[in-house]
Order: sequence, then structure tokens, then C-alpha cells
Amino acid sequence: MTSTDPVPLPDYAGEAPGHGVERVDVVVVGAGLAGLTAARALTARGLAVVVAEASDRVGGRTKAREVEGSLVDLGGTFVGPTQDRIIALADELGLDRFATFDAGSNVISWRGAIKHYRGTIPPIGPIGLADIGRIQFEIDRLGRGIDTAHPERSPHAAKWDSHSLTSWLRSIHALPSSHTLMSIVSGTTWGCEPGEISFLQVLRYIAMAGGISRMLDTAGGAQEEHFRQGSWQVSARMAAELGDRVRLATPVTAVDWTDDGAVVTAGPARFRAARVVLAVPPALRARIAFSPALPTPYSALTQRWPQGILSKAYAVYEQPFWRDAGLSGQALADTGPVTITFDASPHDGSRGILLGFIGGDHARHWDALPPAERRIQALSSFAEVFGEKALTPLGFTDQLWAAEAWTGGGPTAAPAVGTVVSTAPYLREPVGPLHWAGTETAEAWTGFMDGAVRSGERAAREILRALRPFAEVAP
Amino acid sequence: MTSTDPVPLPDYAGEAPGHGVERVDVVVVGAGLAGLTAARALTARGLAVVVAEASDRVGGRTKAREVEGSLVDLGGTFVGPTQDRIIALADELGLDRFATFDAGSNVISWRGAIKHYRGTIPPIGPIGLADIGRIQFEIDRLGRGIDTAHPERSPHAAKWDSHSLTSWLRSIHALPSSHTLMSIVSGTTWGCEPGEISFLQVLRYIAMAGGISRMLDTAGGAQEEHFRQGSWQVSARMAAELGDRVRLATPVTAVDWTDDGAVVTAGPARFRAARVVLAVPPALRARIAFSPALPTPYSALTQRWPQGILSKAYAVYEQPFWRDAGLSGQALADTGPVTITFDASPHDGSRGILLGFIGGDHARHWDALPPAERRIQALSSFAEVFGEKALTPLGFTDQLWAAEAWTGGGPTAAPAVGTVVSTAPYLREPVGPLHWAGTETAEAWTGFMDGAVRSGERAAREILRALRPFAEVAP
Repeated sequence: MTSTDPVPLPDYAGEAPGHGVERVDVVVVGAGLAGLTAARALTARGLAVVVAEASDRVGGRTKAREVEGSLVDLGGTFVGPTQDRIIALADELGLDRFATFDAGSNVISWRGAIKHYRGTIPPIGPIGLADIGRIQFEIDRLGRGIDTAHPERSPHAAKWDSHSLTSWLRSIHALPSSHTLMSIVSGTTWGCEPGEISFLQVLRYIAMAGGISRMLDTAGGAQEEHFRQGSWQVSARMAAELGDRVRLATPVTAVDWTDDGAVVTAGPARFRAARVVLAVPPALRARIAFSPALPTPYSALTQRWPQGILSKAYAVYEQPFWRDAGLSGQALADTGPVTITFDASPHDGSRGILLGFIGGDHARHWDALPPAERRIQALSSFAEVFGEKALTPLGFTDQLWAAEAWTGGGPTAAPAVGTVVSTAPYLREPVGPLHWAGTETAEAWTGFMDGAVRSGERAAREILRALRPFAEVAP
Repeated sequence: MTSTDPVPLPDYAGEAPGHGVERVDVVVVGAGLAGLTAARALTARGLAVVVAEASDRVGGRTKAREVEGSLVDLGGTFVGPTQDRIIALADELGLDRFATFDAGSNVISWRGAIKHYRGTIPPIGPIGLADIGRIQFEIDRLGRGIDTAHPERSPHAAKWDSHSLTSWLRSIHALPSSHTLMSIVSGTTWGCEPGEISFLQVLRYIAMAGGISRMLDTAGGAQEEHFRQGSWQVSARMAAELGDRVRLATPVTAVDWTDDGAVVTAGPARFRAARVVLAVPPALRARIAFSPALPTPYSALTQRWPQGILSKAYAVYEQPFWRDAGLSGQALADTGPVTITFDASPHDGSRGILLGFIGGDHARHWDALPPAERRIQALSSFAEVFGEKALTPLGFTDQLWAAEAWTGGGPTAAPAVGTVVSTAPYLREPVGPLHWAGTETAEAWTGFMDGAVRSGERAAREILRALRPFAEVAP
């Protein structure tokens, strides 16, 4: 077979004839960053691709909304150094980046007092600082020993998987202040409490991001820049290129597969394909009726990588008034519901926009409130650190990722204690014609937009190697 | 409204007219023991009910198969004292029970040696026995302090939820022998390793079963009896009564709901109902697209109650040959893949049948083997404790519950560390017109057939109270 031969399609026995089954080479399930990246790469190599998206929009965990004339990123927002794949892709698609506003003092609401500080080290007292310093050192040190692509193969994998972040912090006698700070990190990074996530996943995730500083920092870190046109445009522009290959409001309900191919059922539509890319979060794989059923470890995996719970609140003001007070717009709070705040104003400073993260237990409670009450609580959080002006924005919006039916939570999965070693080997290992994508399957920057793009590229490479064995496939 | 008034049906706005929507009072999703029990109770009170079952059979986690002329229970098998609701129901449906064979010596394969023993105390040495004795005492003692219906309200709930069974055993310096024994218990009771399950759930589950002895024992315990006609007949007979109200091969894909009712989509079929009973395991609730999406804690729950991994192997022999050797057919093994064995011979002893349980990591590996290899390994386990005769049965069959698409695993859910306190409040709390059933939602004997029946009765009571407010509803 040469690269110009048509891909042989499976002669699928289970299919009733004459029911308008559409033949393609590859069905991609999910039009998020991962799925669209895979579809784009496969289409570029001449394969016939359909992207079946359950919801009525593309973008997955990126989403845009206009508030008082300003665009806000309701999901994935920031990019930073070494996130090379999302940056290359966005460059290629003509998007512009600009630096996250980072001048001035940060604010922390801590143990009932408000303090201003410069840089990344919050003023929580010398003992508290020494303790969080040694914890950061230790997590980074342990992380360097982790096989991030195959965490189950790491030294002491079972031991770290038997700990949650909380139980590990207890085991090293962390101070209460460090428990609080790590709880804020956990809530916004994984959308869960520190007791809900396997410490093996914590180590792996942070190691993939290049350490705690790079993961949490603005300048030089994962929050360094954002897109002028909004991150959702990455997906929107890929979808525009793909045209009618992208089918919205087409939830895949069943995948009947053999070693040779699959028939994908999405409502009344059916597609016959040689390969399928499942570019949805691991938990959402469970939405699909596979026939035959997925092998035991794969089926177990779909039930053991729950999505975190993360919500975002955006308030739009006439001006970024905090800048006048010498503040960066960045804040930490041990109160909540908002525990971390960023300045997400437009690049020209034409408006002032505060972005607040509400994660884990805070989100469990806050999500259940009526919209007006959610707004009051979020604005109160902003006012706590930036003053009363924050209470009267021009506009306000929020996004509850756990209420997003076809996402199931955010920002990423938070596998619990004792579940990573037994499930991680199956995250991206293909099953017959089924390939897996999505940021949870990434070998670098898992949980970030960059990981999503990488996973889509990897899934496309797997398929090209299988269907175009004599063609050159980019590594 | 009196009990003879028709139930007012919702005027559901989202529905396109004229598409053959079937109007009923209640849609029950899932024709397992819980769903059928609920449907039967509601039908008896004059409500119009449809039971939508995804698979092509009723019975859920009970299932029957004939092997060499003998019937075997592929799922739930045994009943015992205080499992009053399943027993009452089976009595009513005309099923007969008979005692699990329990005469003679038990066998244990332990640390490379085979030993025979009487009663429930395996000969693992005085130090090992003392250790497992104190562990049993402690688990039973702690269990008495648990609010089993609302574990999150128990004293020290967060502490116990922060432990797995393994980490709790470590915290009390359990001996390796006790870790091994509890691993066998965990694998067969919850289908998971002791490190995978929250200790709060362990305490709660065992307390609901009346303590470790009652949970594990044959005579006087949960394995005391089984049904001559097979446990699946409980469901089969209820389904026969319900007639064409039960719709097989009708997987529910979407539930659109308001406070007043719901439209349930199951393939091409649509039902409009005042109430819906979701009688599927918590993890399988995630298979359904709810619109609006379930509130955050409910959506989080569906991703945090994974089904265990449990498989069963049955070998059918001409005779129960072990009885001639003075053996009960009951065995424990620290080797595997089969770790617990029972005599499941017909009541008249016309055949000899061994039933072996393969759970947790053993099942992860064993499930992946080709059928012939699974058979060899299971028979080798039987032969290890009952001799070479076990290698040549008349017939053999096995059941991989994790490969059962519409069950997702077995025997019940095994929520991980840190997930019970935040999810348990939502297990059976209705959401608008949505009611929850299934053995995981039971307030007694969760994980057992009895819990399933109780949950179906409770869901029916909730609905009767709502739709027949002036009728007398059995407590």
C-alpha cells in the first residue's frame, strides 16, 4: 500500500444495509482542541475524516463569551514557555498573544488580614514560608523521579498512589498554612480538594508542567500569556478549515468495533471508519456503548478518572482600577469562593477584567446557588482583595464546568488514591481501531491546552502509521 | 387529588409534537432487581409504568446460565438472615431457598501450604489469628459508630474517608497476614484492592451487613442460602408480571427534565413521564445525557462511584467429589486467580458445582486472558484446594462483570479515598422528577440483592408520596 492508495474500509458484519451509513477513514469523537487537532492532521494527509461533536459548539474546554463588548475565555486561557504545540498551532492559525498583566503588587487574603506583596512568595510569615518552601522543593524533587508518560513504572509508584496530596502533606508534618496553600493550588489546578487526588498524579502533573513554579507563575510560567482573540479561536479556526467535516449536536452513543474498523452511531447518523479517535475526557468515554465492551482495564479506567469541579467568574469594569492602586490584579485568598484571581483585561487596557477561579468544595457549594447569589459571592471575593469598586462591574459572567453536560467538569481529571497505577497504562494505549486523545492522555502538559494539542497530534500519528505505513509520518 | 385521580402529566415544552411520544406516569430506567421492584410496586398502585432496559435481558447483576443441565447464578447468588426484603419478594414469587452446603472442613491455601479447618477461623497461626481478630473487632466497633444511611454525618467521617482499607490497616500496624486476608475480602466483596476503596465506605458497608461475620459467613450469614430456581428468577418473574411494560434493548440516552416531569429518550422511543426512577449503578447514570445537566454534586457523583471488578467461574462435576473427602467446598487462597470458593451444587446434590470468585487485580489480569486460558487458571485454583479431580469438570463457564456493557463491573461500587463524604449526600436524594434506585442507594445491605430490592421499594414510596399524596403509602 502506498500513501495514495485508498484506505481499505472494514467489511463490518453487524451493519444493516441501506441505512445511509457514511464511509470515512476516521471518525473523531469530540471537537475540542485534541479532536480538532487530530482531524486537521489527518485531513492534511488526505484521509476522509468526520468529527462528531455532541454539543452545539466546538472548543471543548475552551469557550468564549462577550461581556460588555469584551471577550472572555470561559475555559482554558493561558499559555506559557515550553507549551510549544498550542503556541505553534495558534501562530499558524494567526492568533496573537499578549502578556498577562503582571506589574505591581499581588494581594493575599490570609487568616483574616489583607496583605500586598511582590513576586510569587506570599507574606505568610517566615515559618509558613520555610514550610511551603521545603514542600515545593520536595514535590519538585520527587517529581523528577516520576516517569510522567508511564507513572505506574515510576519508583515507589504504588506508595505515591496510596497517598492523597493531603495524606502526603500529613506524612511530612506540613503546617496548617501549607495545607491551606496546597488546597488553593489543588482547587484551581485539578478542581478538587487535596484529599481527593492521588499524590502520584500530583507529582506526575507538576513534573510534566516543569515544576511548581512554572505551573503557577505568570511571567515565565503557565499563565505568562493569553490570546488577544481568545483561546476558543484556536478551535473555531480549525473547525472553519474542516468545514462540514465537523458535525455539531451529534452525540456519539455507540461504537461497534472489530479489529478492522468500527461503526459509530451518533443519533440517526452512522459512520463506518477504519479508525476512531476518542477525543473526550476519560470519564466521558463511559457515555458511549462500546460493542464488544471495552476490555476490563479500559472500562475500569472510564470510571476512575473523574473530572474535577472548577468554575470561573469574570467581572468587567470600566477600567482596570486596581492598576491605579499599584496592584497586579493577582490575588490569593484562603476564604473563597474565589481563591485565585487574575487580571484578564484586554491587551489595550480598554476595560478592566478580573478572572476568579472557584474550585473543589467551593465550587460544589457555589455552583448550587442561584445566578444572582453566585455573582454576589464572586464579587465579594474580588472586593475583599481589591476594594469596594469591585462590587459594581459593568458586567459579570460565570461558567460552571461541572454543569457542562458534554465536559462533565474541569479543568481536567483528578484520579483518586489507589487508582492511577492500575489505570494509567491504558490511558492512551489503542484498543483495536480505537485511539485515545484529550489532554488527560498527553505525555507533556497534561491538563493544559498544550497537552490537548499534543494528544491530538499523537493520535493522528498513530493512525497515519497504521493506515499509511509507507508514508513519512512526522515524529 | 385522590388516589384514583389520574396523575397530571407535565406539559413539557421542549418536545416536538407528533413524534409518537408515549405518555406514562413513571419511566423506570434499568430492569435489574431495583428497577423491577419499583415498577412492580408502582404498577400495583395503578400507575402507568414503562421499564426501559438497555440490554437484551432483565436481571441486572443477577443472571442465569445452564451448564451441563445445571443452573448457575452468574451474579448475585446468596441470601441470609435479615435480608428480609429479597426473601419476602422471592417467597411471594414462589421461589424456594436451600442452605448453602456447609458440612465438613474448609480449605485454605496459605503461604504455600494447604490446610483444612472447621468453622470460620482459618489456621493462619496464633499471632496471625490474634491480629485478624483484633482487626475484625475494631472494624465492627467503628462500624457501630457509622451513620450508614448518611455516612458523611458519622463522627470522624472525613478521617475515615481519608483512609483506604490499606492505609487504615497500616495505621494500626496490621500484620502482613491480615493485609492478605483483607485483600481477599476486598477483592470478592467490592471487586477492588484494599487500597482502592475508602475506609468510610468499608465501615459503612460492613455495618449495614451486620458486621464482618454476618457478611462473610455461610450459616447465619449472607451466604446462608440460595435459590433453587436461581436468583435471576426473581427478576424474570417480576418482568413476566409486568409484561410489555418492560422494554428490552432500549438504552436510555437522554432525559430532558423540568420540575414537573421528564421526557426520556431511548433510541427511537420517547416517553413522557411525571417521574423517572434511575435504577442503574451510579457510574452508569453518567451514560445518560441529562438536560439540564445534573447539579454539580450529582454529576460529580456519577464519576466517583466506580463499579468494582469481579468475575465468577463455575465448574460443574458429575458429583460434589470434595464432600466424599469431608470437605465443604469452601476455600480461601492467597494465590489466585480464584481467592474464595463455594459449593454451589444443586440442592439435590445431583451434580457437584464449584463457584470461584476472582476480584480486583486478579480479575484485571484474568479477564484479559483468552477463554481457554481463563478456564485453565480457574480450574487450577480449584485443584489447588480440592485436588486434581477439579481439573476435569463436565462443564465450565465464567462471567466477567466488568465486560458487561450495561453493568460496568461488579458486584457493587467501590468509591475511593476522599470521595464518600462529598458524594454520599446525593446518592438517593431526588432531583426534581428524578429518583434514584439500585443497591448502592440502599440504606441496608447495600451491595447485596436485598439492598437492591429495598432501594426499589424506597423509590416507589417516594413517587407514590409525590403522585398519590392522599393515598396510604406503606412505610
